[in-house]
Amino acid sequence: MGFRQGITISMTIQRFESGPRMSQAVTYGDMVYLAGQTAGTVEGTGVTAQTQEILGEIDRLLALAGSDKSRILTATIYLADIATFSEMNAAWEPWVSPDNKPTRATLEAKLAAPEYLVEIVVTAVKSAS
Amino acid sequence: MGFRQGITISMTIQRFESGPRMSQAVTYGDMVYLAGQTAGTVEGTGVTAQTQEILGEIDRLLALAGSDKSRILTATIYLADIATFSEMNAAWEPWVSPDNKPTRATLEAKLAAPEYLVEIVVTAVKSAS
Amino acid sequence: MGFRQGITISMTIQRFESGPRMSQAVTYGDMVYLAGQTAGTVEGTGVTAQTQEILGEIDRLLALAGSDKSRILTATIYLADIATFSEMNAAWEPWVSPDNKPTRATLEAKLAAPEYLVEIVVTAVKSAS
Repeated sequence: MGFRQGITISMTIQRFESGPRMSQAVTYGDMVYLAGQTAGTVEGTGVTAQTQEILGEIDRLLALAGSDKSRILTATIYLADIATFSEMNAAWEPWVSPDNKPTRATLEAKLAAPEYLVEIVVTAVKSAS
Repeated sequence: MGFRQGITISMTIQRFESGPRMSQAVTYGDMVYLAGQTAGTVEGTGVTAQTQEILGEIDRLLALAGSDKSRILTATIYLADIATFSEMNAAWEPWVSPDNKPTRATLEAKLAAPEYLVEIVVTAVKSAS
Repeated sequence: MGFRQGITISMTIQRFESGPRMSQAVTYGDMVYLAGQTAGTVEGTGVTAQTQEILGEIDRLLALAGSDKSRILTATIYLADIATFSEMNAAWEPWVSPDNKPTRATLEAKLAAPEYLVEIVVTAVKSAS
């Protein structure tokens, strides 16, 4: 078969829940990028509760973008106080897909408002369709 | 057509403006990664001015790599003082492509030199050719 | 040749050295993502020694995932104290592939334990096979 064949794979960028500054999810091809997620309810909560709420929001956004937590490649976790590392893990460990653990880095960083104790960024790929 | 066909898509890494420690931009396939950008002029400037200069530099590097701000997928913004969040947004909001907002995470982190008030990392895809 | 051809490129996620919270490396297609690497030996060491150990571990994990340091696209370096920037570079500069510098961002962040002085996250692509 002595011919060369041009291959075009359609790759478009899709953006979800865009506000004035950012989108909450962006997909390109089968890659899924989520914005840094913080908890919506912060009054009187602790790190474990905020992490649980964030992980639920990540589930929701991944579903919106055609993925799920078993398809997460990487996670970056920012804690306002690194001393709350085990409180964050108390929510993370039961949530993460047991056979599909992403890479992870956890760091201390002050977040956009002092009531935010945790922020999580994940990158995933779409679920097989 | 009962044959299987091996498919090779040529994917090379290209590196732009490489110095002793890093490259300012790296592309692979149609992905474009930029190094963390800080302002060149820092004497007597504030966060808004530094952010404007950084965003101009991002425009320049994206063009060099065959992309533009409408094709940014993700942005990570580091502020030396998170209290300058709205000063940073004062430069970000008029700059970001209105119909093409990337995901974003904004964090406080001390940067490589104390005069740097902002550092921004973006990932993009090449513009359709 | 008046036919259209469905193209399926097999893309699976592989995970390496998975523990209760994360995997140390995850690959998807030819992309390679490493978890944030910290030094194993921290007693009485400094930033240069910890960085050297981390870079050796990155070499090991990249090899495991089918890549090597000449194929790194991006690096993010977190220092517990940004004043150790040049101590980190003293290990980084002789290590990084001279003709293949990745993009880089270096930030100060407290890490998961106070004895960790450096943490490095890299993204790479598999070596040509």
